Amino acid sequence: MARFYAVIPAGGIGSRLWPLSRASAPKFLHDLTGSGQTLLQDTVERLRPLSNSDRILIVTGDAHEAAVLNQVAGLSAKNLVLEPSPKDSTAAIALAAAILLKNEPDVIIGSFAADHVITDPEEFHQNVREAVEVAAKGKIVTIGIEPTEPSVGFGYIKTADLIPGSKNARDVEQFIEKPELKKAKRYLRSGKYLWNAGMFIAPAQLLLDVLAQTEPELYSKVVQLAEAWGTKNQQEVFESVWPTLKKIAIDYSVAEPAAEQGLVAVIPAKFGWHDVGDFAAIAQLQADGKPHHLAVLGDVKVISDKSSGILVSETGKLVALIGLEDVIVVDTPDALLVTSKEHAQRVKNLVDSLKNTGHSDVL
Amino acid sequence: MARFYAVIPAGGIGSRLWPLSRASAPKFLHDLTGSGQTLLQDTVERLRPLSNSDRILIVTGDAHEAAVLNQVAGLSAKNLVLEPSPKDSTAAIALAAAILLKNEPDVIIGSFAADHVITDPEEFHQNVREAVEVAAKGKIVTIGIEPTEPSVGFGYIKTADLIPGSKNARDVEQFIEKPELKKAKRYLRSGKYLWNAGMFIAPAQLLLDVLAQTEPELYSKVVQLAEAWGTKNQQEVFESVWPTLKKIAIDYSVAEPAAEQGLVAVIPAKFGWHDVGDFAAIAQLQADGKPHHLAVLGDVKVISDKSSGILVSETGKLVALIGLEDVIVVDTPDALLVTSKEHAQRVKNLVDSLKNTGHSDVL
Repeated sequence: MARFYAVIPAGGIGSRLWPLSRASAPKFLHDLTGSGQTLLQDTVERLRPLSNSDRILIVTGDAHEAAVLNQVAGLSAKNLVLEPSPKDSTAAIALAAAILLKNEPDVIIGSFAADHVITDPEEFHQNVREAVEVAAKGKIVTIGIEPTEPSVGFGYIKTADLIPGSKNARDVEQFIEKPELKKAKRYLRSGKYLWNAGMFIAPAQLLLDVLAQTEPELYSKVVQLAEAWGTKNQQEVFESVWPTLKKIAIDYSVAEPAAEQGLVAVIPAKFGWHDVGDFAAIAQLQADGKPHHLAVLGDVKVISDKSSGILVSETGKLVALIGLEDVIVVDTPDALLVTSKEHAQRVKNLVDSLKNTGHSDVL
Repeated sequence: MARFYAVIPAGGIGSRLWPLSRASAPKFLHDLTGSGQTLLQDTVERLRPLSNSDRILIVTGDAHEAAVLNQVAGLSAKNLVLEPSPKDSTAAIALAAAILLKNEPDVIIGSFAADHVITDPEEFHQNVREAVEVAAKGKIVTIGIEPTEPSVGFGYIKTADLIPGSKNARDVEQFIEKPELKKAKRYLRSGKYLWNAGMFIAPAQLLLDVLAQTEPELYSKVVQLAEAWGTKNQQEVFESVWPTLKKIAIDYSVAEPAAEQGLVAVIPAKFGWHDVGDFAAIAQLQADGKPHHLAVLGDVKVISDKSSGILVSETGKLVALIGLEDVIVVDTPDALLVTSKEHAQRVKNLVDSLKNTGHSDVL
């Protein structure tokens, strides 16, 4: 574990969580579990027993520098890589890898999203420790989630045989993009598929070697940025190179091609995992199996008469709900969303249409 | 028509229109039609061609004095009777009648709620003119509404024969309280029943004579208050007598007993009438028969994706609605209501429960 370094790409806005989540205050800066901590705070706290504050690197937009440092006690500017603009996960993770490699040629990075919910942190730690062991043997290791339903919202990982000498790690045959429902049902039944939760544990050098093959231009630009990092040329190089980076998810640039080369292993997660991707998911997480539950996030007085679903309030004003099953109400100072769990995914389309109609001020 | 004096009891809060309608800003002070005028403004404007500003008396709570004078141009304090506390419609109308009688023994008053919507004002004027003619012959005349559905939310008027020599006026056999659905359906089929819209046109003296028989104590207190009105004793008498007045609707104290004595006539309304009693009624009025219509009251930007019903906003914040049929959303600075047209009537229960749980600050 001495080689381990935690990388937290904190990038996605979480459009499906509008109007709570905004460009100026993305999903990871919010408390979506009612725990009293934001998702980012939870994520850092979960990683500290594995890597302590010295070995945590958060890659986020430069607009969020103050908010991130403000939320996470014990971190400083040297724990941050600030992106001038969003360039998807390959740029974020590869740059972190390249920067860390400068000082530690054998560093093993573990990349974990800033905006997921994980229950059972002890199990998470065990899984990551095993992943680091496997990674040390020259693998890119992911932690896959046992599907609980035929979700069409996640990518899947097709598992192969147990790796000899390994407790839980299996070879990965293939990464599969978000499937249609019919396929998702088949995956669930077969028992061979796991959800891709975007957790990657790998030697930084191996990760960059794969990238050098699959996206040589992006690779060389990332290396150029990493070389300038911390030098007097940093600002100049970032200003000229960063805007030209290709936007591509690490699943496509590294994970899939590496899997084809037999370089990827997966460890089935023993912990509870939720991507809290939309308000329906948060409502479900909060309800914890209780039927007709009304989840409330925020310091707000609610009068509910035969209503269930979720209320999120940033305004503190009294909210009265009557006769609404599975409703979603999100009240913020400048925008109010009312929908139902059934339509929670369509919030993203709405955000797109706000963008296209010149309402970026509320995005 | 020279004998005619318009009386506007402006009393009811309109609990089913919470959180828009409040004790401090009742229903009649709001624009519920999107016309740009409040219901009170519409009511006064509708009556001016019949009685001009000199002969309009508004009976309202003393808390609303400034708002009423501010809304209605051309009226002054002498157009107002201010109630120290709400005492239902008999006290309001009988006091107005008794005050007017002091100067005009043959005055005919027409009492019209401040918070109803009437389309076709020309037809309304014709109906009232005929009512005044019939009233002059010693009748209490009401204008009844042709039922369009078997409503259980209104009282009914059972009509009898056409009054000889009259164009449209019929004797009233009976006033009937809000019926159950089965009865309401029978009333609708029979064609003999009209809705009671609480419009009464009668010689003030006749109205008080009936009250003297049915509620002698209330009658004598009202006369005592009217005698003190405009004198130096007014404040003292109001302070001692007003709190002791019996709360009773004029339907029970005057209309029903007078009908039993054959003193009541009804003219079927030729105009469109709506009591806009709850948000479902307002939505229906706004939709005007258009299916899947989303009505919007207030200066607000709305993004609607497959939603219908009504949005009322006093905050101006952006509102996004997704996939909600017949929704009711009412956003005010300190309270937000979300329900559906189906449950619009239950808003009243909610207001009761707010009252009982110490939330009068938002009522």
